[in-house]
Amino acid sequence: MKFFDLVQEQIPKVESRMREQANGHHPDLEMAIDHLLNAGGKRLRPTVSILVGRMIAAPEDRTITLAASVELLHTATLVHDDVIDGSLLRRGNPTLNARWSPGATILTGDFIFARAAKLAAETESVPLMKLFAKTLSTIVNGEITQLFVSKGLISREDYYQRIYAKTASLFELSCIAPVFLKDEDPVKIEKMRKFGYEVGMAFQIVDDVLDFTSKQTELGKPVANDLRSGLVTLPALHYLDKCPDCPEIRKVVEDRIVSEETILHVVNAIRESGAIQSALDEAKEFVSRGLESLYQFPESEERDALEELARFVVDRQI
Amino acid sequence: MKFFDLVQEQIPKVESRMREQANGHHPDLEMAIDHLLNAGGKRLRPTVSILVGRMIAAPEDRTITLAASVELLHTATLVHDDVIDGSLLRRGNPTLNARWSPGATILTGDFIFARAAKLAAETESVPLMKLFAKTLSTIVNGEITQLFVSKGLISREDYYQRIYAKTASLFELSCIAPVFLKDEDPVKIEKMRKFGYEVGMAFQIVDDVLDFTSKQTELGKPVANDLRSGLVTLPALHYLDKCPDCPEIRKVVEDRIVSEETILHVVNAIRESGAIQSALDEAKEFVSRGLESLYQFPESEERDALEELARFVVDRQI
Repeated sequence: MKFFDLVQEQIPKVESRMREQANGHHPDLEMAIDHLLNAGGKRLRPTVSILVGRMIAAPEDRTITLAASVELLHTATLVHDDVIDGSLLRRGNPTLNARWSPGATILTGDFIFARAAKLAAETESVPLMKLFAKTLSTIVNGEITQLFVSKGLISREDYYQRIYAKTASLFELSCIAPVFLKDEDPVKIEKMRKFGYEVGMAFQIVDDVLDFTSKQTELGKPVANDLRSGLVTLPALHYLDKCPDCPEIRKVVEDRIVSEETILHVVNAIRESGAIQSALDEAKEFVSRGLESLYQFPESEERDALEELARFVVDRQI
Repeated sequence: MKFFDLVQEQIPKVESRMREQANGHHPDLEMAIDHLLNAGGKRLRPTVSILVGRMIAAPEDRTITLAASVELLHTATLVHDDVIDGSLLRRGNPTLNARWSPGATILTGDFIFARAAKLAAETESVPLMKLFAKTLSTIVNGEITQLFVSKGLISREDYYQRIYAKTASLFELSCIAPVFLKDEDPVKIEKMRKFGYEVGMAFQIVDDVLDFTSKQTELGKPVANDLRSGLVTLPALHYLDKCPDCPEIRKVVEDRIVSEETILHVVNAIRESGAIQSALDEAKEFVSRGLESLYQFPESEERDALEELARFVVDRQI
C-alpha cells in the first residue's frame, strides 16, 4: 500500500531506534525487545506520525524519535496486558510471558515504559512529554476500569470511553505530537487531534468486529474472545439495539455462562442480525469525520497517504 | 529531627500533589494511592529535594512538583516489587497485592509511573525529564539483573552496581533535579550528584545491615530476609573477606539450603565476625565523601539539615 511505501525508509530507522534502547542494559532485555519487535505488528502508529510529520514539515529525526517512543509505549502496554490476561500468543507468536516468569515480564514492560519516556524526553518538547504521560494515564485508567467495572451490559457511552482509552488516545498522540515538533500551532493540533481520534476509534471498532468475523487462525485466538471474557463490544451493542431482550447474550456477559454452545449461538445471532454491518458502518462514519478534518490541510502526497491509511483501517481483514 | 522540621510546611504539599494524581480517574485508583500514602514511609527523597531546592533557591512550587514525581516513581517501583515478590506486608502494612489481584496491582503501578512522568513533565525542565526516564531505566535494569543473575556469591563491584540501581540512582535524581529548576549549573549538578550518590549508597548499605540486625517486628519480615532469598549483601561480603571459605554461607546462597538452623548459624557467624561493624564503617565513609561534596556549598540552615539527614541515614535503627 502506498502509505507503507512512503515511509519505507523511515520505519527501519524507527525500529533501530527502538532496538537501541536495550544497549548497555541486561542482555535478556535486548533479547526481549528483539523478540517483541520481530513478532511484527503493522507499525501503524509510527507510520501515522511520520506521515503527519512530513505533511507539516516537522524535523525528521525528532519525528523518528517520537514515533519510536509511541510504538514502545504501545509495546509496553501489550506486554503488561499479556501478563495480566495470561495470554500465551499474540499475533500467532508466543508472548513474553509464555517464556518468562511474570516478574521478568512485568519488569521488561516497566523497562520499555522507561525507554519510551526517555525517547519522549529526547524530542526536547515539553508539551509532547506532557501529552505522552497523560496518554499513558488514560490507557492504564481505561484498563483498570475494564478490569473492575465495565464487564456486563454497558452503555454505548461506556463503550466509546473504553475504546478511546484503549486505542484512540494513542492515535491522537501519534497525530498531535509531530505538530509539537514543528510549531505547536493550536489550530493544526486540534485538526490532527480530531483526525487521530476518529481514525483511532474506527480502528478499535474494526478490531472488535474482527473478533466476531475472523477465523481462529488469523488472530491466534478463538472467535468472540471478548464476549467469552464478558466484554461487550459494538457488534453486540448494535445487536442489542435490534433485539433488546435477547436472553442468550445476557447469559454470557452477565451470568458468565460460556458454554461453547451458548457462545456460538450468540455469535450466529449477532452475525445474522446485521449488527456486524451496522458496526462497520459506524466505523466508516468515524473515518469520514476524521477525513473532513484531514482535508483542512493542503493537498499533498502525505495527505493522500493518510487518507488511504484511514480507509485501510476500516477495510482491513486483520 | 531538624531536617524534618524544616520541611514540615512543604511535605504536606508534596503529599497532596501526589494524592491529586488520581482525581478524575477510577475511584479504586484514588483508594489505592491513599492506601499507599497512608502506609507511611519517611519521605526522605522529597525531603532531600526540598532542602536542596531551598539551599540553592530553586522555585518552590516546581520543586514540590519534582519531589512528588520522585516519590511517586519510588512508590510505583515498590508496588511492582511487592507483586513480583508476592510480599504481603511492607513496613508492617498490607501491600496492595495482599488485597488486589496481580493484574489490578500491576496496572496501579503503571498508573503511578504515568503520573510520576506527568509531574516530571510539569516541572517544564527537559533535562529533568531525561534524568527521570534514565533513572527509571537504571532502577528496572537493576531489578532485572537481580532477578536473572546476581544471586549467589557476587563481587563487591556487582554489589555496588546493584545498590546504585536500587537506591543511589534515585537519591542522585532527588539531589540533581532541583538544580535543573534553578540554573542547570554543571558544577552544582556534579556536586549534588556526588552528594546524592554517596548518601544513597550509604542508605542502602544500612538497609542491608538492618536486615541482619533488626528484629522481625521492626521491619515486618524475618531476620536475614535477603540471605534467605539468595541475595548477598555487604555484611556477608565483609564476612567472606574475613573468612573466605566459610562453607555455610555458600550452602545458603549457592546451594539454596535454607533450613532455619543454617540461616541462624550464618547470621550468628556474621554478627560475631565484626562484619556488621565493617559494613557500617563503610557506610560512614560513603557519607563522609558525600559531606565533602555538600560542604562546597555556602553554609546555610538547609545545608546543615542535609548534613544532619546524611548522618541520620547511617545512625537510624529502622
